[in-house]
Parts: sequence; C-alpha cells; structure tokens
Amino acid sequence: MGQINEFELIKRYLAPLQCRQIPLSVGDDAAILPCDSATYVCTDTLVSGIHFLPHWPVEHVAYKAVAVNVSDLMAMGAKAQTIQLALTLPDAQPDRLAALHQGLKAACETFGVCLSGGDTTRGAIMVLTVTALGTAASGRPWRRSGVRPGDLLAVTGTLGDAALGLAMLMGQAPEDDACMLALQRPQLPLDAWRYLTKLDVHAAIDISDGLVQDAGHLAAQSGVSIVIELERLPLSSPVQQWCAHHGNWDPPLFGGEDYQLLVAMPPELARQAQTDGQVRIIGRVERGQGVSVLHQGRVFPLSGTQGFQHF
Amino acid sequence: MGQINEFELIKRYLAPLQCRQIPLSVGDDAAILPCDSATYVCTDTLVSGIHFLPHWPVEHVAYKAVAVNVSDLMAMGAKAQTIQLALTLPDAQPDRLAALHQGLKAACETFGVCLSGGDTTRGAIMVLTVTALGTAASGRPWRRSGVRPGDLLAVTGTLGDAALGLAMLMGQAPEDDACMLALQRPQLPLDAWRYLTKLDVHAAIDISDGLVQDAGHLAAQSGVSIVIELERLPLSSPVQQWCAHHGNWDPPLFGGEDYQLLVAMPPELARQAQTDGQVRIIGRVERGQGVSVLHQGRVFPLSGTQGFQHF
Repeated sequence: MGQINEFELIKRYLAPLQCRQIPLSVGDDAAILPCDSATYVCTDTLVSGIHFLPHWPVEHVAYKAVAVNVSDLMAMGAKAQTIQLALTLPDAQPDRLAALHQGLKAACETFGVCLSGGDTTRGAIMVLTVTALGTAASGRPWRRSGVRPGDLLAVTGTLGDAALGLAMLMGQAPEDDACMLALQRPQLPLDAWRYLTKLDVHAAIDISDGLVQDAGHLAAQSGVSIVIELERLPLSSPVQQWCAHHGNWDPPLFGGEDYQLLVAMPPELARQAQTDGQVRIIGRVERGQGVSVLHQGRVFPLSGTQGFQHF
Repeated sequence: MGQINEFELIKRYLAPLQCRQIPLSVGDDAAILPCDSATYVCTDTLVSGIHFLPHWPVEHVAYKAVAVNVSDLMAMGAKAQTIQLALTLPDAQPDRLAALHQGLKAACETFGVCLSGGDTTRGAIMVLTVTALGTAASGRPWRRSGVRPGDLLAVTGTLGDAALGLAMLMGQAPEDDACMLALQRPQLPLDAWRYLTKLDVHAAIDISDGLVQDAGHLAAQSGVSIVIELERLPLSSPVQQWCAHHGNWDPPLFGGEDYQLLVAMPPELARQAQTDGQVRIIGRVERGQGVSVLHQGRVFPLSGTQGFQHF
C-alpha cells in the first residue's frame, strides 16, 4: 500500500478520536476547552531511539505517549480530559498509522480522554509529544512540596518491572511478557488513584525517573528526609527473583518508567489504604533532608545508576 | 565547552521563562492554570530538516516555534497566555542552548506569554513542539465556519514574503533580509489583531499553508464561494518585483508561512479597517463553493503548488 496525504491521515486515523463535546478542535486553528477554575496541563515526549526503538509495536508506543501524560496529571490529583497530540513521522504507511490509531484509541478509552487537537509533521524519526489537559479530582492539588515529617510513604502497584522489561528486551534477562508490557504499555494504577483522590494525600509523584530519584524530588521540594525500607518494596515475582539472584536492587530502586504513584500521607490513612489493598507502605518521613534506604534496619549503600538523565 | 545535564539545562535556560503567577509549573508533574470559562489550546511542531535547516539560527527557530502557535490562537480571536514546550535536542551545547533561550525569551516578551511547563528530551534531530494556551480576546470565537455571503475578505500585512525568503535561502532569488526574516522569524500582526478583536469579525484563519489553500479552508467549512482579486493583494516590493519578473503569483497565492490573518467581515467594517490602515480588502464572499482568483476581472488559472502538504 502506498502512502497517504496529511489531510487523509488526520481524517482517517485521528479525527475519530476527536472530542465530541468540544466546540472546535481538529480542523480549526485551536480548540476551545470549557473550564471551571483551573486547567491542569503537562507535556511529555517519546522519541524514537531514546524512549522506544523503531521495531517496537507502534500501538504500544502510542498508548504509552498518552499514558505517561495521564500519569503526570494523576500525580497532581487531577483527571486528564483531553490531549493535544504532536506527531512526527518519517512516513505515512497505512499499517503503521492503523496501529498508531489503535494504541491512541485504547488509551483514550482506558483513561477517558479525547483528542482536542495537535499537529502532524514529517521528520527523520518518529516523535510523539502529548500535552494532557485536565481538571482537579482530589480536594486540593498534590504538590511535591507537601510532604510533612511524620507522614508515611506509600506506593501503588509493583516496582522495577519496567526496568527489568528493558533488560529483557536487551537480552540481559529471561523474557517475561508482563515485565515487557510494563515497559512498553504501562498500566496506570487507576483504581488506587481513584481511591486516593478521596483522601488527604499530602504529596504525590509518579515514579518515572526511578524510586530513589523521584523520592529525592519529594524530599528536596518538601525539605524533609525520606527513609525507605528495602524489604517493604512491592515486587513482582520476576523482579524479586532477579534481585535475589543478582544480589542487587537496582530495578526497583533506580529503574525508571514504572508509572506507579508515590504518595505521602498521614500514617492512619496510609495504613487504612494498605489494609484496603490500594497501596503498600514503603517508608516514612522525618525532619532532615535527602533519601536513605534501609535494609534490615541498616543503611543500604546507594550505588546504582541514580535514575535516568537525558544529557 | 562541554555539555550540561538535563536539570542544569532546565534551570539555566528554561526556568527563567517560567510563569511567576502560576501556582506550579517547572519542577512539578503538571502546571495549574487559572481559567474563567474556556481555555483555547493549539499545538504546532517545527522539525529540523522539514520546517528549518540545521544551520538556521537557533534563536529564530525557537522564536518561530512560539510565534506560529500564538498566531493560531490569534486566528481564533484568542490571546495566548502560557506555552508548554517539548524540546528534543541532539546534544546540549551551551551556545545553542543560549541562543534557544534568547529566541524563546524574545517571543515570550513580544507576545506576553510565559512557560508553564514541558519536556526536554534527547533525539537524533531537533524538534520543537509548542502547545499554547490562552483566553478569549474577541467577543466570540472566530470560527472557520463563520464566513457569510456578502462578507468582504481582508488580510493583514503583506503576502508571499516568507515564500520568497525560502527561495532566497535556496539560492533561487537575490537575497533580501526582510523576506528571509519573514520566513525564519515571522512578525505577527499584533496591532491589526488587537484592532480586529474589537470588531464583529465573522471568521478568521492564519495564512500558514498559503492564501489559496487557507481561503479554501474557510470556503469549505463555511459553505461559501470566495473570490480573490489578484491586483488587490498587498505585496512587499521584493515580492512585487519577483512576480512581475517571473509573470507568476505563486509566492503570494500559494506560499505558506506568512502568518498573516485572513478575515471575513461585514463590508462596512472591512472598509473602515482598511481606511484605518489595519487590513487590505482582497476579495468578497458569494453563495457557492470553492476559491477563485480574478485578474483584471478574468478568472486567473490556479496552477501553483496548491499549498504545503507534509505527506
């Protein structure tokens, strides 16, 4: 099959994802989004060769481009409503576009968002930039600066799966579908997030750079010390096995892209949320600064890769 | 000079452009933008090798990435307030980053916008995606579907300068600084736009794909026929000379990236706006469909490149 032109591309693969309740969007110069008092907005980019490889399933890549943005809004206690999609593609092959459409469609349905607009451009490599716009879902915004001494630190889901998935894709670990999917098509903790929006969460962040680095962001912006207990980390069995076998906890401590929520909240709420099966308590907050990890009560030396940096 | 890391890049070159009046932005997972009733949003991408060449001044590229988005909101009758910037860079050379900062800063100051957030990623080529968010400035949105038979069609500024600038950069025309700047660092018609926001403009579009193609969007979405009179087109003297010399009107008719406003409005308002020196009347609207161009009262055959298409 040949390539198609830009207008056809938009009409066939993007317009069906367009928001119906929005006055204007695809086809006009800008969309008009109704809002009450505040719009939450965030932007994340996935670049071929950096965040994904050219041979990865395009459907997963498209899904993930939406998911990582929805995750950022969730980490603020906000619900994504619409997305702007900037799509740079080296070509316009219908089969790739159909896969892209499928991934976007699945994400839109899963997260309850629709396409309010964007841009489609040609370029040497595939780049997807999504800007998600949403509204408050929690009583107040979950700021990184809201952690208080005495809070407990809790996390949704399991940690390190995406990092182990990456090791698998690089041939460094035996393959496990769940871990590879955790990397390529992250499942966001929607149920736990919905549960948490009803509580007095003091601060939150989504774990995208790795637990230690992201906990470090919370500690730095709140001016507190965060203590994580290694044996409390929720691990899937492949990650548990890998850590035991290698005697190293890099995937759950430093592996990026888990897209689980790290939240700080009053102890009684954290314990209740854990009892309700929504989160796992992994540490506590004290006066001071920085992040430390304890293993069987002793300081665990942090010698990992210290999270992902682009430059 | 060596490269710098991602956090340093953000701190040094992007954080100074951050909105001060916004509760959260750079550093948190999302920004919270106050809003009244509606947020206008648009997204445009500039890709190296497609929209600009690697040797073009980075300062101009950065300026243009903001300008083209501000232009989209202006074409809706809306004023940009903040921008989200997704920056993909092949490296983090301080001199290029300083130029990038200068271009963004100049655009932020000129257009009265600030940076509400974004993402910085590495990639094989430079890609800038800006999402602009703004609020209504005109009495009602200027929709593409609002053109009515009997309206006059008017345009701000001059047409074809950017297209001629591109020809100059490709060595196909003698160089003229103003035309090359029109392409690389478009000056938006801020004064005329401000004047127009106080009037009953029926529809507007910014001329990014070329006059004929963009007039075609208005005609198609409004279900009307648009008649443009060639001799009325406002042309700078380099464009006038080029057209006379080559006996062809492709730059003003089909050249993209002028970022002037094409507006449809009641005749008496259009004539007043022309008298006030804010716009030039270039045509009229009739019942029917499509765009036709007249030259000395006769149909002018449209055989140009028919506007820019990506695929």
